[in-house]
Amino acid sequence: MEPSVRLAEQSTAVKRRLGALLPAADDPPQALHQAMRYACLAGGKFLRPAFCIASCAAAGGDPATALDAACALEMVHSFSLIHDDLPALDDDDMRRGMPSCHKAFGEAVAILAGDALFALAFQTLAASSEEPKIAAMAVSALAEAASALVRGETRDLQAEGKSVSTQELQTIHQEKTAALFAASCAIGGLMAAAPAPTVSALKEFGQRVGLAFQIADDILNETSTPEQLGKAVGSDRARGKSTYSETHGVERASDLANAEIETAIQSLAGLSNTAQDLRDLARFTISRKS
Amino acid sequence: MEPSVRLAEQSTAVKRRLGALLPAADDPPQALHQAMRYACLAGGKFLRPAFCIASCAAAGGDPATALDAACALEMVHSFSLIHDDLPALDDDDMRRGMPSCHKAFGEAVAILAGDALFALAFQTLAASSEEPKIAAMAVSALAEAASALVRGETRDLQAEGKSVSTQELQTIHQEKTAALFAASCAIGGLMAAAPAPTVSALKEFGQRVGLAFQIADDILNETSTPEQLGKAVGSDRARGKSTYSETHGVERASDLANAEIETAIQSLAGLSNTAQDLRDLARFTISRKS
Repeated sequence: MEPSVRLAEQSTAVKRRLGALLPAADDPPQALHQAMRYACLAGGKFLRPAFCIASCAAAGGDPATALDAACALEMVHSFSLIHDDLPALDDDDMRRGMPSCHKAFGEAVAILAGDALFALAFQTLAASSEEPKIAAMAVSALAEAASALVRGETRDLQAEGKSVSTQELQTIHQEKTAALFAASCAIGGLMAAAPAPTVSALKEFGQRVGLAFQIADDILNETSTPEQLGKAVGSDRARGKSTYSETHGVERASDLANAEIETAIQSLAGLSNTAQDLRDLARFTISRKS
Repeated sequence: MEPSVRLAEQSTAVKRRLGALLPAADDPPQALHQAMRYACLAGGKFLRPAFCIASCAAAGGDPATALDAACALEMVHSFSLIHDDLPALDDDDMRRGMPSCHKAFGEAVAILAGDALFALAFQTLAASSEEPKIAAMAVSALAEAASALVRGETRDLQAEGKSVSTQELQTIHQEKTAALFAASCAIGGLMAAAPAPTVSALKEFGQRVGLAFQIADDILNETSTPEQLGKAVGSDRARGKSTYSETHGVERASDLANAEIETAIQSLAGLSNTAQDLRDLARFTISRKS
């Protein structure tokens, strides 16, 4: 089966479970819950959940045991997109081909919907395993990744209009994007009750894939169309953001992303052969067109 | 010892531990970490930590075992104040006699500092007990309270300028304020490895004390001075917020707060006599002048 087909099938399961975990749209306060559902359910690729579930399988676990954790990861991702799109931050009006959350629901509700998704992610994760030790480790991993994400976003904003070193740019991407991919894979391993070295290998894999994903994102922001991407293109350049495509050129950036993916895949060498799904997913993250 | 003296002593310990748990001010990105420390360490009363620690003691635990959890509760409280003060929400320029976080650090950093404190709270709580089951239950309790807090804040905003029923007003206060007090006390009980009925009793106690605290806050917003309070007074009325003092009158609101405290204290009947600290704290929450 093509990775894109498998991803689509899995997305359906994740979306259904997310729909059940999120508060109902007609539960008061309705605006908050509608905004949470809008941000989480409308048009995402559910890539982080896919990595979480595939990591669980690669570590020998039943993929179903990682479903709730996968949803928690998507909640944190959605929270971060809502807050990043706010006028005070990236000020993006469009997301996934639709008005961004604050455009659709107003700034106050958008800020609060982000907060509520963040809280629900931890509520979900704390109950994601019957083994409290696994749940506690998963909460630690997610909280650590969320802290990194916020640091990366802060660095990213502060670097606007400035020339940053390639090292600093890599740190921004590692924190802003790769940390949550790393946590997605590590948490998938935890849900499989995998031994610590396996969880570490999955984390390392996710960290590299996440960096490659962000490099691919930089390239798409430069080379894609708003129709393909569902959000503004060229916005990084317009805001004076440092990107891999601008710092290294599109071709070299693309080579760097490929190299990260290949190194990432090598770090899976010790896992069982079901890691084929993870390999396919990894290659998909840099071949995608949106 | 006077409750206010004991509270001051305990505050010193909480503040010292918070200072160690928070990222150092000169760790990059500095603005983020400075904003986190500013919001958490400057001038708070550390009431929620005090309830957490006193609840641990009342349940027969060593108060020191609740210190990290107590700090996590203060982080969530600080996160909520930062976001509530934002221009899109309550638009408050002053907090604890100083510029609110977004006034001091700008909106973008304030939003992110709130997010980072929220993440750090869960990181801290997940590591707050050597017993993973306790840590996982504490994470659940905190996440549930944070969800309630965000719902309450949303209801509060949506009720501005409208006449709301006394029932709806009570729901707002329960969610916006009382839920985190309830979690503070329940988590204190958890850290003492207390049995479920004790944790429930502490939660019930905290819920009532939290409601009384918010009623007292409504009254102070009406009757205090900006100098005493360290923030704007009369702001609830100016924004058309429904409050207990406006709905019931100051005198009746004060009676309601007293009644909640007395019922709260009765719910402690089954605990050991060290609950005296909790009783004193409960009475202090409505006799305070700021």
